[in-house]
Amino acid sequence: MELLDALKWRYATKKMSGKAVPQELVDQIVEAAYLAPTSSGLQQFEIIVISNQELKEKIQPIAYNQSQIVDASHLLVFASWDGYTDERIDRMFDHMNTERGLPLNATDEYKTGLKANLFSLTKEQQAAHTGKQSYISFGIALAAAAELKVDATPMEGFVAADLDELLGLTAKGLKSQTIIALGYRAEEGDWLVNMKKVRQPKEVFLTEIK
Amino acid sequence: MELLDALKWRYATKKMSGKAVPQELVDQIVEAAYLAPTSSGLQQFEIIVISNQELKEKIQPIAYNQSQIVDASHLLVFASWDGYTDERIDRMFDHMNTERGLPLNATDEYKTGLKANLFSLTKEQQAAHTGKQSYISFGIALAAAAELKVDATPMEGFVAADLDELLGLTAKGLKSQTIIALGYRAEEGDWLVNMKKVRQPKEVFLTEIK
Repeated sequence: MELLDALKWRYATKKMSGKAVPQELVDQIVEAAYLAPTSSGLQQFEIIVISNQELKEKIQPIAYNQSQIVDASHLLVFASWDGYTDERIDRMFDHMNTERGLPLNATDEYKTGLKANLFSLTKEQQAAHTGKQSYISFGIALAAAAELKVDATPMEGFVAADLDELLGLTAKGLKSQTIIALGYRAEEGDWLVNMKKVRQPKEVFLTEIK
Repeated sequence: MELLDALKWRYATKKMSGKAVPQELVDQIVEAAYLAPTSSGLQQFEIIVISNQELKEKIQPIAYNQSQIVDASHLLVFASWDGYTDERIDRMFDHMNTERGLPLNATDEYKTGLKANLFSLTKEQQAAHTGKQSYISFGIALAAAAELKVDATPMEGFVAADLDELLGLTAKGLKSQTIIALGYRAEEGDWLVNMKKVRQPKEVFLTEIK
């Protein structure tokens, strides 16, 4: 399977060269992220793709001055809904039913049960749930980048509230969760590139019940 | 890219045939999940692979009697750490440094800062953070299954506390987050199989800042 080779090849790139990733490859990575499944198909997040260098320079201090922010050619910001609302859920189900040629009320029973569940969560729990959905897409985007031999740095190391203000996400009811910096590894200066990829011992990670 | 075709092919299978997925393919899907990146490389979750039919029958009522639980040949349960502890973090960094031939104290400065961050979170926030890491792997496992033309149902619809008790996860300090049912679509009885895959309109989902 191509994906396993890609996952062995990839690593969290620490130093990028500044070379730009072709737009065509960025588009494929975003398309993979777009196709990721989510809970009830609600797709509770958006992606902001940033290639503007001035904006990247403003983001760098928010991301603890990590060099990849400015040396990557594209940043993918994953920003999830800050919570659930009737309007958000209705809009997605209406869209789904319309696209499938179904009456708008085709999913009413399911939707009522779903809302009862989701609205019983605290606002913090709702945000954790929408955030988790964005991580499915985040993982798939990292896999897609690796299959295309595009280097990537998965990042949580930034002050989310500051990034949300800078990008106007708060006003849109979104919370930034993660960033993927896309670019190409530099020839020198990356302490991680030659380090062994380490995971938990398989006997700790995996339990099989046959 | 093979992955895009796979993501277009896959769907949340609603009715499985009972046909078993070959162990070799399950192993590749688990390997992809195992290689998924996580925050600071801590790999804050484990996977339980269940092919025992009696156990699947006990899980079915916990999962709202969904048929895929017993008609899938394998269930992958993603269970994340219930929180951060010194011991968990130290054990992973010790393992990482040992595998890389580095002294055990090579990462002490980084680890101290990381612990200060993670321990400043509430227990609920810690569990949300470890849970999110498991969703990266969950997404990549779904992509891997699709590349191998193995059908899969991504599931959050189960009573996590009950599953944790049944599988002894609580005693291990783990919380079940998601299940992937692996199998093959049935020839009949799947309402979703011929439905159009729907995502948000691209202009809502995607913002580009050039």
